[in-house]
Amino acid sequence: MAALLILVIVAALLALGYAAFNFIGVKKLDEGTDRMSEIAEAIRVGANAFITYEYKIIGIVVVIIAIIFAAIFSVQYGKFSWEPSVCFIIGVVMSASAGWVGMKIATYANVRVSNTARKTKNIGSTLKVALKGGSVMGLCVGGFALLGLFLVYIIFGYGLNMISISALRDGQHIFTQCLSCYALGCSIVAMFNRVGGGIYTKAADMGADLVGKTEAHIPEDDPRNPATIADNVGDNVGDVAGLGSDLLESFVGAISSAIILAVSLFLSNIANKLTVSDTLLMKMMYFPLVFAAIGLIASCLGIAYVLIKKGSDSPHRDLNISTWSAAVITIIGGFVATYFMFKPETKAVLDVAGFKTGYTSPWIAASLGVISGVIIGAIAEYYTSYDYNPTKKIAESAKEGAALTITQGLAVGMKSCMLPLIILGITTYVSYAVSGMFGIAMAAVGMLSFVSATVSVDTYGPISDNAGGIAEMSELEPEVREITDKLDSVGNTTAAIGKGFAIGSASFAALSLMVSFLYAFQPEGSQLELNFTNPLILAGALIGGALPFLFSGMLIEAVANAARKMVDEVRRQFKEIPGILEGKAKPDYKTCIEISSQGALKEMRMPAVLSIIFPVISGFLFGPYFVGGLLIGATLSAIMLAIFTGNAGGAWDNAKKYIESGVFEGQGKGSPAHDAAVVGDTVGDPLKDTVGPSLDILIKIMSTVSLVAAVLFYNYNLLYLIFGIR
Amino acid sequence: MAALLILVIVAALLALGYAAFNFIGVKKLDEGTDRMSEIAEAIRVGANAFITYEYKIIGIVVVIIAIIFAAIFSVQYGKFSWEPSVCFIIGVVMSASAGWVGMKIATYANVRVSNTARKTKNIGSTLKVALKGGSVMGLCVGGFALLGLFLVYIIFGYGLNMISISALRDGQHIFTQCLSCYALGCSIVAMFNRVGGGIYTKAADMGADLVGKTEAHIPEDDPRNPATIADNVGDNVGDVAGLGSDLLESFVGAISSAIILAVSLFLSNIANKLTVSDTLLMKMMYFPLVFAAIGLIASCLGIAYVLIKKGSDSPHRDLNISTWSAAVITIIGGFVATYFMFKPETKAVLDVAGFKTGYTSPWIAASLGVISGVIIGAIAEYYTSYDYNPTKKIAESAKEGAALTITQGLAVGMKSCMLPLIILGITTYVSYAVSGMFGIAMAAVGMLSFVSATVSVDTYGPISDNAGGIAEMSELEPEVREITDKLDSVGNTTAAIGKGFAIGSASFAALSLMVSFLYAFQPEGSQLELNFTNPLILAGALIGGALPFLFSGMLIEAVANAARKMVDEVRRQFKEIPGILEGKAKPDYKTCIEISSQGALKEMRMPAVLSIIFPVISGFLFGPYFVGGLLIGATLSAIMLAIFTGNAGGAWDNAKKYIESGVFEGQGKGSPAHDAAVVGDTVGDPLKDTVGPSLDILIKIMSTVSLVAAVLFYNYNLLYLIFGIR
Repeated sequence: MAALLILVIVAALLALGYAAFNFIGVKKLDEGTDRMSEIAEAIRVGANAFITYEYKIIGIVVVIIAIIFAAIFSVQYGKFSWEPSVCFIIGVVMSASAGWVGMKIATYANVRVSNTARKTKNIGSTLKVALKGGSVMGLCVGGFALLGLFLVYIIFGYGLNMISISALRDGQHIFTQCLSCYALGCSIVAMFNRVGGGIYTKAADMGADLVGKTEAHIPEDDPRNPATIADNVGDNVGDVAGLGSDLLESFVGAISSAIILAVSLFLSNIANKLTVSDTLLMKMMYFPLVFAAIGLIASCLGIAYVLIKKGSDSPHRDLNISTWSAAVITIIGGFVATYFMFKPETKAVLDVAGFKTGYTSPWIAASLGVISGVIIGAIAEYYTSYDYNPTKKIAESAKEGAALTITQGLAVGMKSCMLPLIILGITTYVSYAVSGMFGIAMAAVGMLSFVSATVSVDTYGPISDNAGGIAEMSELEPEVREITDKLDSVGNTTAAIGKGFAIGSASFAALSLMVSFLYAFQPEGSQLELNFTNPLILAGALIGGALPFLFSGMLIEAVANAARKMVDEVRRQFKEIPGILEGKAKPDYKTCIEISSQGALKEMRMPAVLSIIFPVISGFLFGPYFVGGLLIGATLSAIMLAIFTGNAGGAWDNAKKYIESGVFEGQGKGSPAHDAAVVGDTVGDPLKDTVGPSLDILIKIMSTVSLVAAVLFYNYNLLYLIFGIR
Repeated sequence: MAALLILVIVAALLALGYAAFNFIGVKKLDEGTDRMSEIAEAIRVGANAFITYEYKIIGIVVVIIAIIFAAIFSVQYGKFSWEPSVCFIIGVVMSASAGWVGMKIATYANVRVSNTARKTKNIGSTLKVALKGGSVMGLCVGGFALLGLFLVYIIFGYGLNMISISALRDGQHIFTQCLSCYALGCSIVAMFNRVGGGIYTKAADMGADLVGKTEAHIPEDDPRNPATIADNVGDNVGDVAGLGSDLLESFVGAISSAIILAVSLFLSNIANKLTVSDTLLMKMMYFPLVFAAIGLIASCLGIAYVLIKKGSDSPHRDLNISTWSAAVITIIGGFVATYFMFKPETKAVLDVAGFKTGYTSPWIAASLGVISGVIIGAIAEYYTSYDYNPTKKIAESAKEGAALTITQGLAVGMKSCMLPLIILGITTYVSYAVSGMFGIAMAAVGMLSFVSATVSVDTYGPISDNAGGIAEMSELEPEVREITDKLDSVGNTTAAIGKGFAIGSASFAALSLMVSFLYAFQPEGSQLELNFTNPLILAGALIGGALPFLFSGMLIEAVANAARKMVDEVRRQFKEIPGILEGKAKPDYKTCIEISSQGALKEMRMPAVLSIIFPVISGFLFGPYFVGGLLIGATLSAIMLAIFTGNAGGAWDNAKKYIESGVFEGQGKGSPAHDAAVVGDTVGDPLKDTVGPSLDILIKIMSTVSLVAAVLFYNYNLLYLIFGIR
């Protein structure tokens, strides 16, 4: 069985190697004019400064948590238990590395994309550079995630013999604990990158727009605006590194929870005196890894195909081809794997594991996940692209003023929740029907298996956006800007698809983590009776449901606070630096970058602490049932809010773009309709780029924290210790 | 035991008698100048026309549903079962009567309030007229609700012997079915009044504002605006009749579900072979009614006290006194009732019923409900009154433009969800801990017991608002307008408190209906295992969670669509009627009223059908587990959305008022800050007055429909009939 680990490490190294190859390939390209180099350098320095500062803080937090974990688990297991802490640190290192490499390449690729456009004047070649840059982030997500899992399996599973059947049977669960801690390590970094990065990018963006566009009437990305470099740094910090760590976490969370569920199921079957098969357990512990490895290899193939094939003039189609081909190859490869792994088992053995449709069961669940990931992305595209009615209707409303623009956008966002949730509901039910709880987790693994392809396409967006900014700031020919604009507009659609996918997959990962929590918290492996007539669960669900709203409200205020400081600074510079608006004096970009950095890291503190502390405190006060309810409530309301904010924000943004494209005669840029659309876009910005993505993290981090502490909650909580109520 | 029914009918008749007394007392007052009478008449005719038209539609819908019910229940019970249909019709008649009387008095009281202000120039006397008018609606809510329950008990319980112990023990549940159908009758009317009225009032309001304030620059309630009468009609239709039927439905839902739970508990104890006490069951079946009757009497006393005592110059304090005194008297009276009813029972008997703290158990639960109702109201006041920071901060943001006003308002609304949910969570848990599931239902009864006092205070608001409008339109002296403005501003705060209370109590009523559903659906009285690891429940919760978002999005669009038609009409009149803007020609009010009426009744169709059909179709497709999940998901997300929209809308409205009060020097009416605040208010209007209140109805109607059809879902659903999956 261990031979399967070779497949995992091969896939990881293939992806990382291909990432390195593309990194070098991009970096060796020319940066263009001096002005371009200079701007790119400023962005690069700003991004580096933020991530260095942020990683220092992460370092401190991580060391503290690792020590606490070692202490707690040593008490819990009655011997010095350093293993979960080390796994936690491996997770941190993997996720931090992926974010760092991805951000690095994005700050190299942006200027090289502008330069390719400048030199070739060809959209196909320019697209390839942007996608090559994006692929580095995408491949690193899959590569580092599997590398870390490989390490955890090799060091702890084999080296320390934790996945021997006898070790698993003794019910101490230390291997599943190691996996949870590995996932938590990834979560912590994702929290910083996504929440901190999200606040950073929107504070800079809103700050730049509020003074630049509205007061000084200078266009977006104008070099006279002191906040413009910070805005571009933000794209790399929030939209690249943040997105990467977010999806890496979902990927790891889905795989880990599938493995944990396999173990729990095994133990619960033993507890129920069923005849279990040790071989099948092992296979179920490897199948999620194998499926993920196949997905990663498929993603490499999908990306390589688009990078190698002759460039077409439809960038959108090319990008879709890479995702879809990855999805199809994953499904086919997954079938081969399930055939070889589960076909040899007898029906009786498979029945005990809950495989209702024979050996194909886990494959059906995983394939359903793949398909629903693609569909959820398409739904997000429908609601946010201006090719379709919802966004067009917002643009129409803009003619009637800001109030109706906002109203219509809210309506679109709210209505957009139903379809993705129906897809999630069907996938949940059918994957359970064919393969039990393990099926739900496998659907999550499936949905995330081709994550490297989707992240590559998704990262292409902010790189093109930055490239456009650099073209504008370097005052390149309009033709160049035209090419980057075209790429950017495709990027908006892919970003919407990517956001839908991120939310859908995060929901699924969270659901599957939640289910693991229900199974994991009792040492006997029996499952938590999460009955809604239990008032602790009901109370937990009520309070949990309010948590994402509180968290969102805090984040919106955080962005607004940070943006206000930026506004003050930009106003100050416009006033105090003579000649700045005439382009004669250089603005002080650095101070703006510092304001964004400090604002982001200060403002993220409360929400970050909240998401970690809330489940922990509730667990020790009211026990696992309350936490179970809390997770259900929070997951449900976070999914809705994330879809609502993501789609409303995306639709407002594109409604503005639709008006800018000149569809309404005489109502282009600067018209009252456009002004109304700008209000919509400004409201939508923090919703779609800070709140929505951060909600993904909120529910995953709450679930992982709870999963890690589940047994502790069960044994030590106030209600139990004082009143004996469990 | 039946003697207790005398208390119920005495309370009901006392309330209705007092309502009649106040109705006559208000009506005999003078209407003032001819101009005032004329305007009042126009509003009255408009309101009558709408409600007559609406009630005709309700009539048709009701007859159809009653026939379907008779058919279904005849099949289910194997004999011709007309009883539930009759109970359903009783519910419809009670709720419709309350709404009709309340709206009637509001259209008489408005002009008399203006006239009292004109004649006395005294705020205390004017307040009394407004409150006297409001009290008619409040007292009718409690009076008609209990009258109907009395009829159901007397006719079906006694006359047809349905609550004899033997009838209850045979498990056919027809009496509980009668109660559910009675509650559903109230729900149907509430749905029309609240959703239809909500669309009506905001379509007229937004339509009037969008052209009047923004384009023609004429003030609010200006008689030159053709939509202004429709706007005033809307207050009476949506804010008076809609609110009244909404709370009547919550009141009835809470009481019915407490009684149903008592019966289910009894049957489930028998099924579990426990020794049950028939006397205790009877007492538990009467206690909710008794507590509600005490609350109604207490409300009469509270209202009478304020109407009789010497008027002070602090209207807000006077209004609070009536609510608080009603709450205190209810708690004290409730203790007396619990003492006489449950003290005589032995500990063993009480233990079986789940009374953990002896005979006081249900009283503790109900009192907790009363207290949390008051607290939730106070929290809503904190978030929406401009005496406190959240609203002030929105007003501050208005200086920075529309986008930040919206952003800040969204943040306030989102953050405001946590505290009320913590209160709900604590109340749920503690009331269960002292008195089991019956305790949760009793907490809901407690929260709603003094509903007549809160509705009276709440109805005072729109009456004062209308009075102000009439004063403006009749061009009365500024002093009069000053008095009505002061009353109106107090009305805004009481409206916010009332909205918080409406949402809190609706949530509780829905929770308690949901719990009844879990218990009720199995003929044996055993409870539905609503375990979240059941994938049907999980899928149901996911889809259910999206439902309130879909519903809200549809309602926002409905208001916008109806408002657009109004805008077109107002623009047409401004253009086509010469001299209208100079005040020389009279606008055509009637057409605007017709547009609002037709728009409302057309636009409400889809959302109304959705809320009834969705649970029914899902129930027959996927069975009761799916519906259970659906209810949980929908209830959770509706509670959050209702609080979010209610508080965000209220805060925007008051932020605008705060700016109008002139706190920011040089930034009063017409300034850019005020313009930004108007955008916030316009966005908030449909959120707080249409979406939020309609969500109350959505969850209650879904729960009641499911409760009525529970057994059918269990026996006839596609999954069960085809795959045998239950």
